[in-house]
Amino acid sequence: MKLYGYWRSGTSYRVRIALALKGATIEQEPVNLLAGEHHSEAFRAKNPQGLVPALELDDGTILTQSPAIIEYLDETLPGPKLLPEDPLRRARARQLAAIIGCDIHPVQNLRILKYLQDPLGHDKETAFAWAAHWIDVGFEALEKELERTGWQGPFLLGAQPSVPDCYLLPQLYAGRRFGANVQHFPKLLQVEEALTAMPAVKDAHPDHQPDAQPC
Amino acid sequence: MKLYGYWRSGTSYRVRIALALKGATIEQEPVNLLAGEHHSEAFRAKNPQGLVPALELDDGTILTQSPAIIEYLDETLPGPKLLPEDPLRRARARQLAAIIGCDIHPVQNLRILKYLQDPLGHDKETAFAWAAHWIDVGFEALEKELERTGWQGPFLLGAQPSVPDCYLLPQLYAGRRFGANVQHFPKLLQVEEALTAMPAVKDAHPDHQPDAQPC
Repeated sequence: MKLYGYWRSGTSYRVRIALALKGATIEQEPVNLLAGEHHSEAFRAKNPQGLVPALELDDGTILTQSPAIIEYLDETLPGPKLLPEDPLRRARARQLAAIIGCDIHPVQNLRILKYLQDPLGHDKETAFAWAAHWIDVGFEALEKELERTGWQGPFLLGAQPSVPDCYLLPQLYAGRRFGANVQHFPKLLQVEEALTAMPAVKDAHPDHQPDAQPC
Repeated sequence: MKLYGYWRSGTSYRVRIALALKGATIEQEPVNLLAGEHHSEAFRAKNPQGLVPALELDDGTILTQSPAIIEYLDETLPGPKLLPEDPLRRARARQLAAIIGCDIHPVQNLRILKYLQDPLGHDKETAFAWAAHWIDVGFEALEKELERTGWQGPFLLGAQPSVPDCYLLPQLYAGRRFGANVQHFPKLLQVEEALTAMPAVKDAHPDHQPDAQPC
């Protein structure tokens, strides 16, 4: 298996965390988004969306979309299960993941921030403020949802790391980058601390990737 | 079980289609988004995100986020399975669903189109053009992905309706509303035809809901 990704892509970072939690290592091939490699004909032949991550199986089959990739890795790789067995707890895991994966990240994705600038004519500060706004709105709801459901920690779903934890770290990373008020969400920061105490998860951080660039 | 939803909400419509495909009927309680009922204290006590749909179980447990709700219904209700058994085909189903559920719908959601108008100052036409743009971009990739993977129909994943089919009809509905070029995507329209030939799926259409309003 080979993972096409980009060091600072939040959705690539999610998959790297899932692999870390499974205790798995696979080949990684960087796609330089800054250089537009994701728009190349060669990459679009693999993923017509022109987005990372994309997982290439040994027979050449391509699988895209991080929610699908993460559950596929969980279902097929050895290692700790990232989804509980109980249907309601599985659903809760998917719910917490989707709050980030559907309602936060896609709205502050690179292509959206670019479009706000051109053609819509906003400056970079406005685009960043847009990103920060939606991250704050989503994190506030997530923090309240944890409170509503009697969250005890240390991970989003309780004692064991699970699928939504893969989504949290990249979103906090993006939140800091865009100026969101991440300090307002103590439960999320506690989960972050528990996750980054795990060496393999720490290694999945964007700054530790071979294609990382100084900003 | 009770489903809180809104007739024209694409994510509520998705869940109604899933129920239709499972052959299940559950109580539905409308939340009037136009009247702002989703922002009420009573509703936010159920879902801090203030979004529909929300599924209330018989013991009062609330589950939100349509991707989580749909897989929960599939795992717990009798009726045809909406996800195949094979891990790769399950992943493919989730991938096609996520192309719509992550990269199209959230970007053209009501709250986003409102924010483009206030505070960003765009007119309604620009907001609708934004929605149409992201729908066209997403549908083009989805149509190409079907082509790339040798799609035969009649449903998105082949002979049987599955999870991503629940996502397609609401997105086509929104696409027409916002002026996207849905006629450019013949495979998606073929899938729509196959789905709407099923009476229960047809009944899930927004216009057939008790809370539907003339526009």
